[in-house]
Amino acid sequence: MSLTHLDEHHHPVMVDVSHKLPNAREAIASGEIWMSREAYDAILTYSAPKGSVIDTVILAAIMGGKRCSDLIPLCHPLPLTSLSCDIEPLEHTIGFRLRTRAKTTASTGVEMEALTAVSVGLLTFYDMLKALDPAMSLHHIALETKTGGSHGPYHRS
Amino acid sequence: MSLTHLDEHHHPVMVDVSHKLPNAREAIASGEIWMSREAYDAILTYSAPKGSVIDTVILAAIMGGKRCSDLIPLCHPLPLTSLSCDIEPLEHTIGFRLRTRAKTTASTGVEMEALTAVSVGLLTFYDMLKALDPAMSLHHIALETKTGGSHGPYHRS
Amino acid sequence: MSLTHLDEHHHPVMVDVSHKLPNAREAIASGEIWMSREAYDAILTYSAPKGSVIDTVILAAIMGGKRCSDLIPLCHPLPLTSLSCDIEPLEHTIGFRLRTRAKTTASTGVEMEALTAVSVGLLTFYDMLKALDPAMSLHHIALETKTGGSHGPYHRS
Amino acid sequence: MSLTHLDEHHHPVMVDVSHKLPNAREAIASGEIWMSREAYDAILTYSAPKGSVIDTVILAAIMGGKRCSDLIPLCHPLPLTSLSCDIEPLEHTIGFRLRTRAKTTASTGVEMEALTAVSVGLLTFYDMLKALDPAMSLHHIALETKTGGSHGPYHRS
Amino acid sequence: MSLTHLDEHHHPVMVDVSHKLPNAREAIASGEIWMSREAYDAILTYSAPKGSVIDTVILAAIMGGKRCSDLIPLCHPLPLTSLSCDIEPLEHTIGFRLRTRAKTTASTGVEMEALTAVSVGLLTFYDMLKALDPAMSLHHIALETKTGGSHGPYHRS
Amino acid sequence: MSLTHLDEHHHPVMVDVSHKLPNAREAIASGEIWMSREAYDAILTYSAPKGSVIDTVILAAIMGGKRCSDLIPLCHPLPLTSLSCDIEPLEHTIGFRLRTRAKTTASTGVEMEALTAVSVGLLTFYDMLKALDPAMSLHHIALETKTGGSHGPYHRS
Repeated sequence: MSLTHLDEHHHPVMVDVSHKLPNAREAIASGEIWMSREAYDAILTYSAPKGSVIDTVILAAIMGGKRCSDLIPLCHPLPLTSLSCDIEPLEHTIGFRLRTRAKTTASTGVEMEALTAVSVGLLTFYDMLKALDPAMSLHHIALETKTGGSHGPYHRS
Repeated sequence: MSLTHLDEHHHPVMVDVSHKLPNAREAIASGEIWMSREAYDAILTYSAPKGSVIDTVILAAIMGGKRCSDLIPLCHPLPLTSLSCDIEPLEHTIGFRLRTRAKTTASTGVEMEALTAVSVGLLTFYDMLKALDPAMSLHHIALETKTGGSHGPYHRS
Repeated sequence: MSLTHLDEHHHPVMVDVSHKLPNAREAIASGEIWMSREAYDAILTYSAPKGSVIDTVILAAIMGGKRCSDLIPLCHPLPLTSLSCDIEPLEHTIGFRLRTRAKTTASTGVEMEALTAVSVGLLTFYDMLKALDPAMSLHHIALETKTGGSHGPYHRS
Repeated sequence: MSLTHLDEHHHPVMVDVSHKLPNAREAIASGEIWMSREAYDAILTYSAPKGSVIDTVILAAIMGGKRCSDLIPLCHPLPLTSLSCDIEPLEHTIGFRLRTRAKTTASTGVEMEALTAVSVGLLTFYDMLKALDPAMSLHHIALETKTGGSHGPYHRS
Repeated sequence: MSLTHLDEHHHPVMVDVSHKLPNAREAIASGEIWMSREAYDAILTYSAPKGSVIDTVILAAIMGGKRCSDLIPLCHPLPLTSLSCDIEPLEHTIGFRLRTRAKTTASTGVEMEALTAVSVGLLTFYDMLKALDPAMSLHHIALETKTGGSHGPYHRS
Repeated sequence: MSLTHLDEHHHPVMVDVSHKLPNAREAIASGEIWMSREAYDAILTYSAPKGSVIDTVILAAIMGGKRCSDLIPLCHPLPLTSLSCDIEPLEHTIGFRLRTRAKTTASTGVEMEALTAVSVGLLTFYDMLKALDPAMSLHHIALETKTGGSHGPYHRS
């Protein structure tokens, strides 16, 4: 059991996927931002759940997902064929959950694109609301499902 | 009480800071990645706590922090004067905490740079270990302290 | 009378502004997209003038303005201190006018940032509506006013 | 008739093209910059029509076309297989027309790349000549033809 | 015999490879940095040959290789399927040799990605050691081998 | 004597320059590309020394210099106030020397920008001529002079 992203000298390496044929792949990731009641209400009152704050978060997520291989050092560049976002209010925790679904046809998985989109989207939530509540925090950023890989599908238990 | 990042038509806007003089600012942010014992041990065994996995995470964090204003739509571009990282193993939770400290001399705060660095660094942890444990998750990404802003210092309680 | 962006060998050069002190500068630019009645109505019906299409255009404009010096070869990198957008329907021409206002404190003007923001915003309009009307076209992309430069203010007549 | 770039919640989405096979696609776009006689003559006198100003415009257009999916929020990343430019003086209007031809083999069209190349190229014209004539303006940025798409070819009438 | 990257008007052009089928391609490039004995020893003493300086150089090389088509104006964007690095001390010359191996499946070669990775990696060596020895210099940056192209393999003699 | 770019745990760090006042700084760097007589003559014959190949190299150098802090992991972002290039034929070695001069007003030096510009410019030479001569190589990429730093001026002996 070794680390795939280190070579035989223990240095970082972009894993060789040149021998793998491209196939359809999909990944779903999600994460949460927790906030004060005041900040939560401000989104509902001043922007509305379907308004500009949410739009900005979604666009940041999509554009962030496209920049994934620029950000994650050992990630392969991938031609995304789809990236969609869904935002759900968390009424008990007080906050929002952002879920992203990424697709590609490539020789390697698309989970980092989905996870990067979640992270950049949630950071954008923080940026837009930080004047109201600098104590917001991000949690449960994780991969939900992944299909199309050579090791079979993954579903988070 | 309105949202600073929406204008009078409720559309997104990059907040006008042109009337503010630049001053020294600093922000510290942190976040955690939780993982299986197997993945945790692999870092210690195959890379060592001071080895290539940690180096890759730190470099991704620094480079990600520099890309902040490319990623967060309404963030102002900032000339970072310092960005440093610290990684600490979490032996009970099993995982790692990444803490970043960003500095600038500018008219606006540097907390988004520190938070972006944390997020990109933790995503890079995920990327390097995902073959061992795709169920890893990111938590408690938050601002710890912020100084230099016109509203006085912030310390997370 | 020579071209400022060519050197004495007639090759491109980034103009030397190292001897100029930074000062407050502002530029306003605008441009139009003309479209069919069908596309125009679709924005009003399916998105509403303050809805997601407009938000996407504005965010693309702001992010595009921040990328200006990456795109325009001889442009100096500038720390934008403000970038705001305004969109107005053109009921007679049928279309929309996008106006951007950019500010900085720097040794050189900010008009390219304002113009790049207009162009990227209008292209995003095109992208979102092209399935309805591929014949849309962009017009009158121009600088409206510029202040703070060493040659005095400019106002388009 | 709905907007393809909004999802069922009216939020922005990168359209799913994962079910489409890649095929050869091409797009031609063009646009104009109008200027004073003084600026027009300066290009001919100090740079020559085939000289450095034109080269700079063409290179900016090509590099801008390659950055298209970074700029246009909902654009898919595309592997461009060709991008060529042609510049023609407009002796009556006084100015220049820039025409770009982009090709790819992909699941989605290449018109945004061609249009982005035109826009960035024309903005670069503006940048290089703005000291002579800040009143220059961009017009008629439009798609001329598009082939390879599932809805058949498009030719601007 | 003409220059492939100039069109019939002698202007720059991204060569049309749309008629070529993608195939497996590989390129190996290398280059050297020469330095003082003092700087050389510092790497061995304070970082160790397998330590953080080397990791930083390798990561910069990999990330730089991924940015190739953003940097080299007429380069086609390529989906890299592998990028690996090897660093060897040069005990007689006093310095280090960086060798990179890039792979893709594409319609055009991958040598610019390999060469860009070498250059960015070596510049990163310089950056990290410049306080010790600003007189370091880069040499022998060259393509070693290239396979998969339509003109047959190339091996540097 | 320690490595400035490693912290006390021997991990990479962006050096803290927040305590330093910005001042005028300048750096000159240069490098060479060596080529076959055939490639050298092609530039003179098909492009002319002042023609499009040279323009493309210069523009790539300028744009590459602006991207320096994106490429070199521990480099501070800098507001370049000038970047100019000079290309000189090497008639005996057969090739070209590219010299760049970068200026800024900042808390840290501008030598990496000048060196990155040289490297990207020379790689662009390679790219444009590689069909004629894949055996070209880059040499003597080095800093010539540096002024404005707290340790006094540097002139390469």
